[in-house]
Amino acid sequence: MTISSFVPPHRTLMGPGPSDIYPQVLQALSRPTIGHLDPLFIGMMDELKELLKYAFQTQNDFTIAVSAPGSAGMETCFVNLVEPGDKVIVCRNGVFGERMRENVVRCGGEAIVVEDDWGTPVSVSKVEQAIAQHPDAKILAFVHAETSTGAVSDAKTLGALAKQHDMLTIVDAVTSLGGVPLLVDEWQLDAVYSGSQKCLSCVPGLSPVTYSPAAIEVIKSRKTTVQSWFLDQSLVLGYWSGDGKRSYHHTAPVNSLYALHESLVLLKNEGLENAWQRHKDMHLLLREGLEKLGLSFVVEEQSRLPQLNAVYLPEGVDDAAVRTQLLEEYNLEIGAGLGALAGKAWRIGLMGYGARRENVALCLKALETVLK
Amino acid sequence: MTISSFVPPHRTLMGPGPSDIYPQVLQALSRPTIGHLDPLFIGMMDELKELLKYAFQTQNDFTIAVSAPGSAGMETCFVNLVEPGDKVIVCRNGVFGERMRENVVRCGGEAIVVEDDWGTPVSVSKVEQAIAQHPDAKILAFVHAETSTGAVSDAKTLGALAKQHDMLTIVDAVTSLGGVPLLVDEWQLDAVYSGSQKCLSCVPGLSPVTYSPAAIEVIKSRKTTVQSWFLDQSLVLGYWSGDGKRSYHHTAPVNSLYALHESLVLLKNEGLENAWQRHKDMHLLLREGLEKLGLSFVVEEQSRLPQLNAVYLPEGVDDAAVRTQLLEEYNLEIGAGLGALAGKAWRIGLMGYGARRENVALCLKALETVLK
Repeated sequence: MTISSFVPPHRTLMGPGPSDIYPQVLQALSRPTIGHLDPLFIGMMDELKELLKYAFQTQNDFTIAVSAPGSAGMETCFVNLVEPGDKVIVCRNGVFGERMRENVVRCGGEAIVVEDDWGTPVSVSKVEQAIAQHPDAKILAFVHAETSTGAVSDAKTLGALAKQHDMLTIVDAVTSLGGVPLLVDEWQLDAVYSGSQKCLSCVPGLSPVTYSPAAIEVIKSRKTTVQSWFLDQSLVLGYWSGDGKRSYHHTAPVNSLYALHESLVLLKNEGLENAWQRHKDMHLLLREGLEKLGLSFVVEEQSRLPQLNAVYLPEGVDDAAVRTQLLEEYNLEIGAGLGALAGKAWRIGLMGYGARRENVALCLKALETVLK
Repeated sequence: MTISSFVPPHRTLMGPGPSDIYPQVLQALSRPTIGHLDPLFIGMMDELKELLKYAFQTQNDFTIAVSAPGSAGMETCFVNLVEPGDKVIVCRNGVFGERMRENVVRCGGEAIVVEDDWGTPVSVSKVEQAIAQHPDAKILAFVHAETSTGAVSDAKTLGALAKQHDMLTIVDAVTSLGGVPLLVDEWQLDAVYSGSQKCLSCVPGLSPVTYSPAAIEVIKSRKTTVQSWFLDQSLVLGYWSGDGKRSYHHTAPVNSLYALHESLVLLKNEGLENAWQRHKDMHLLLREGLEKLGLSFVVEEQSRLPQLNAVYLPEGVDDAAVRTQLLEEYNLEIGAGLGALAGKAWRIGLMGYGARRENVALCLKALETVLK
């Protein structure tokens, strides 16, 4: 078997991520690798922390990128904050809420599940009830933007509710960061993780995370050792910390961090508010076209994420056949349904660099032709 | 604070890794991102498995790349194979043996440490004694090529010893893969992990791993759930598996996997034996020059890794000042000592693409000038 270089085609990525990557980010990615303890690299990491603080709208000192995909970012928050026996209220309204529950259990915690239908936001009143029933719960965990359904939940209200009851929050912002308002400090969120490959339009493989001083306090006062060596934030901090000499923990993914830095420079130059508005504008344009094609949204209007548009398949349409045709004839990727929505819905992403007029036009025209 | 694009200089990387990256690998890295469930990407992953099997010299079906650096590869092997209460004999002759011990403890296992001096290989007779004292030990864990000292251990003999006693082996091959002989099947090794950023000369951030059928059997018959969701190989297998539909686990680091694929194509084209010989030749050339400069090796000749040359600092030389001068004046990175060798030794890497005559020449001339 002779294997030669892999040369991928140019796809337009309008699924749930990875999203279309900024050309500047791909350029940054292939710049010469330097050492992970090189003073110039450490300077770059300091800038990266500042840029991430801007993206998260936080002053949290401990704002870094985990050297692995968003799922590892999720696990990082859980393994560092949950100790065996801890009670965690987990809101489940899609795939990623269930993954949070799995994480709690694997940390030896007790998960109290607040269930909502797929496609609906987390119910604040149900969370209130759960807190009333479990006043000893330590953490409230929820997904801000459910990538499996396209529903956004009210992170501001949930954050305030947790603070009223002296609970920490763990928040999944994988799909929200950079696409819709996310104000970590103003909303009083404690441990928030995201992914590089959604609205930041960077390559997949990194997970930005930020921890409030209250979360850091809990990490520092743990009674048990974090079960993961790789994700133990007290060890990682020695490498990312701004003061003095950096201590070696693991070899940082140097080139991927160049790419993340570049994507955040682009976000900062555009301005967060402008990026949010652009996502909204493109969503409205896409919505208009999809509705003209007779497609209807899974999520009610007030809870729709502009960057992830889940629409039901029209009657009698072959899910896989349509997606294959879009891919083969138009080099266009849209997402399949996941979990409860598998075979029933498509997920059309308008994330980061992908939230452009030309992408909307391509998607609408291609879908129109294929569905005829 | 205005932050603009980060443009690194071109360094010659002769530390303990990341190593000099092949230009073709950087090119592959920046090819257009496609979806992680795209049929073309899945085809690339199948090729990648074949290429990894060649590099590891194994027929193991379950041979993949963990979506995170080598330390996560280490943790993957331990969390999947060690259950609470399991006894693991861990050989410690440097930083990474100690990290293995940490992993055993964090998995709830009992670590029996076999201690050897830094810079010496693992003592086979000490391991025999430990096995005799602990016949109920389930796993023997050791580092094939200690990156902190440059010593290679006899993985073949240790592998056979473990099999005689019906034990599994977990082997750290982070620095050995592609640089010195590593014959996973012939040596009967069970769970072997490596890193992308050493002798493969790919960017840092991925960890190739391979599991023997015996290791898979142990994973499948676990009584407890793997403590890590992200690293749970029974879940990951659904994505990497060759048969039928791929199930989503996490978003693969698409571009980094392009790069790994390219680096392995280059290794296959060169041929493993040729790559091993090139590392040896360049090591002999470097050694000759270093000895002329009056530098002496930390490791005895018969246990020296050609790709990682640890030499003692000459009397009265300022460690950091020399390394800074090399970096600033020659754009040359050599490695500092780690752990017990901090401030006492340098580590000069000749890994993968870095094992070239021009690198040896630059290093020797620059060192000669700076040390004058």
